[in-house]
Amino acid sequence: MKAKIDGEVKDIRAVWFEKDKVVMIDQRELPEKIVLVEFDDYRDVAESIRNMTTRGAPSIGGTAAYGMCLAALKGEDIDAAAAYIKKARPTANDLFYAVDYMVARLKKGDDPIVAADDYAQSMVDKCTKIGEYGGELIKDGFKVMTHCNAGALATVDVGTALAPMRKAHDDGKKFFVYVSETRPRLQGMQLTAWELLQEGIDHAIIPDGSSGHFIRKGVDMIITGADRIAANGDFANKIGTFEKAVLAKEFGVPFYVAAPISTFDFNTKTGEDIIIEDRSEDEVTMIKGVRIAPVGCKALNPSFDMTPARYVTGFITEKGILKPSEIDKVRE
Amino acid sequence: MKAKIDGEVKDIRAVWFEKDKVVMIDQRELPEKIVLVEFDDYRDVAESIRNMTTRGAPSIGGTAAYGMCLAALKGEDIDAAAAYIKKARPTANDLFYAVDYMVARLKKGDDPIVAADDYAQSMVDKCTKIGEYGGELIKDGFKVMTHCNAGALATVDVGTALAPMRKAHDDGKKFFVYVSETRPRLQGMQLTAWELLQEGIDHAIIPDGSSGHFIRKGVDMIITGADRIAANGDFANKIGTFEKAVLAKEFGVPFYVAAPISTFDFNTKTGEDIIIEDRSEDEVTMIKGVRIAPVGCKALNPSFDMTPARYVTGFITEKGILKPSEIDKVRE
Repeated sequence: MKAKIDGEVKDIRAVWFEKDKVVMIDQRELPEKIVLVEFDDYRDVAESIRNMTTRGAPSIGGTAAYGMCLAALKGEDIDAAAAYIKKARPTANDLFYAVDYMVARLKKGDDPIVAADDYAQSMVDKCTKIGEYGGELIKDGFKVMTHCNAGALATVDVGTALAPMRKAHDDGKKFFVYVSETRPRLQGMQLTAWELLQEGIDHAIIPDGSSGHFIRKGVDMIITGADRIAANGDFANKIGTFEKAVLAKEFGVPFYVAAPISTFDFNTKTGEDIIIEDRSEDEVTMIKGVRIAPVGCKALNPSFDMTPARYVTGFITEKGILKPSEIDKVRE
Repeated sequence: MKAKIDGEVKDIRAVWFEKDKVVMIDQRELPEKIVLVEFDDYRDVAESIRNMTTRGAPSIGGTAAYGMCLAALKGEDIDAAAAYIKKARPTANDLFYAVDYMVARLKKGDDPIVAADDYAQSMVDKCTKIGEYGGELIKDGFKVMTHCNAGALATVDVGTALAPMRKAHDDGKKFFVYVSETRPRLQGMQLTAWELLQEGIDHAIIPDGSSGHFIRKGVDMIITGADRIAANGDFANKIGTFEKAVLAKEFGVPFYVAAPISTFDFNTKTGEDIIIEDRSEDEVTMIKGVRIAPVGCKALNPSFDMTPARYVTGFITEKGILKPSEIDKVRE
């Protein structure tokens, strides 16, 4: 992804391995500044996932893979490291997938850095394919809506929901993106809008509650990412996704979910089985360290919501676009 | 409404007339502190409506009435004052209604203070009736959802959407209120939650985008206010209202609009004729004076949305609860 560091536009990833350390963009500092942080202990890498220094299911997977790489290089107990890292966030399937991938590669005796780099590169390759399939859906003059950040920051590079937009833009198509701000953490406003700005894609930030207003006025398609997709096509994604899917159905707007196959969890039968993470109410009641809610009031902060498969037009994956009824095709 | 001023709990209104001045709560300062501001020129009163020192359609009406009272007391041109005050906000029908009411009373030679007080008191009486009719709908153990602030602050006193909750609470019923925070200006978080806290009504603030999640999990009814209701039952209210109405319909949750008859505008045939006010993008991109969006990104900030009548279960008015098909009963 493009990022201006020390006055120079560079092409960097959300997370990578360099000089015995895991390096990542501290996404909590965006969009004000680009801060790179480094870790040489897998426990700190797990903490960076927990405290959302890095976020987005595929970037969490990549980060977890590099965390396992660190553990292996330092001769730590692989199974203990795997168990530790898996506990960092409860909802993202990629986290478990990446850790299991690394455990298998490490137990085969593969080089830890090569294995983790393979994992990260395969994620980027998948996103590129998602961009190719999804880009075809975006027509000249379209109004597209997205939510949260399923961009390069969330997926090591390129993005899932943003991959089709990058591809369509690269192909010279003109379109407009509604970016819902994504309270409480504002990843739409602060990360997706930032990425679209870097790429020169026309967009505007909108309050989450205005999505319905704009959908009724005319949106051509909605594309979001997913944190976990159950075997029946129900999926969990950032809080606020479900509402857009219901509104899309009500107004006949196609609703697409862009995600690599690794986001499918065939061990989870339906969305009802997905554990929804409740995060601290401070994320709602405070902003930039200042309390904005009346002192004494409580808040609820479910981090994700679950959207039943019946609201999904299609899943844009690296193996093509699948209807919810076609998911079994990619079951391994 | 209850409000703690200088350590003492007082029963005050959102706006009133005292010692030749219009006094009001500066609602932009809530919930951190209760600041009372005074004006002795109707132009400043109009500005207090424009800049949202006072807000909520009925409080805007009451404020406009007191503004007209000031103009009359100071011997200003009544028609010029009426035209000036009417321009303060484009969407609230109560603003026009209150100004026309005062012009008629003043041209009859009525005392300006008595006329404005009559207008404000009639608003409070209507809210009390709304509370009586609407309170019956709230059952013990209910989970109720509301949006923005249609409370005492918005209606001189008592509230519209909050009136049924005050009444049910006074009647000893136990229920829980989901208060959606209402970005960008956070009137739900900062005003409604504040009012419920003062009254001791159990509640939690939720991000706007989580409404669908909670509705799917189980909400028993939704009550909002309205800024203007068209002759066919379509209505305009704070941005974010429409989404909740669609979600309520999808999940069979009753959706009520609490508003006095004065909010009905029979000159407006359908919701498509209601002008939606676009406010400054700074309200979205900045919070408490600090920019939160990436520099260079645009935002859209429609202040209201329009909900078609087909999503409304009933209008809770001072004359009873009306289905959209029954609106003509109250046409004067």
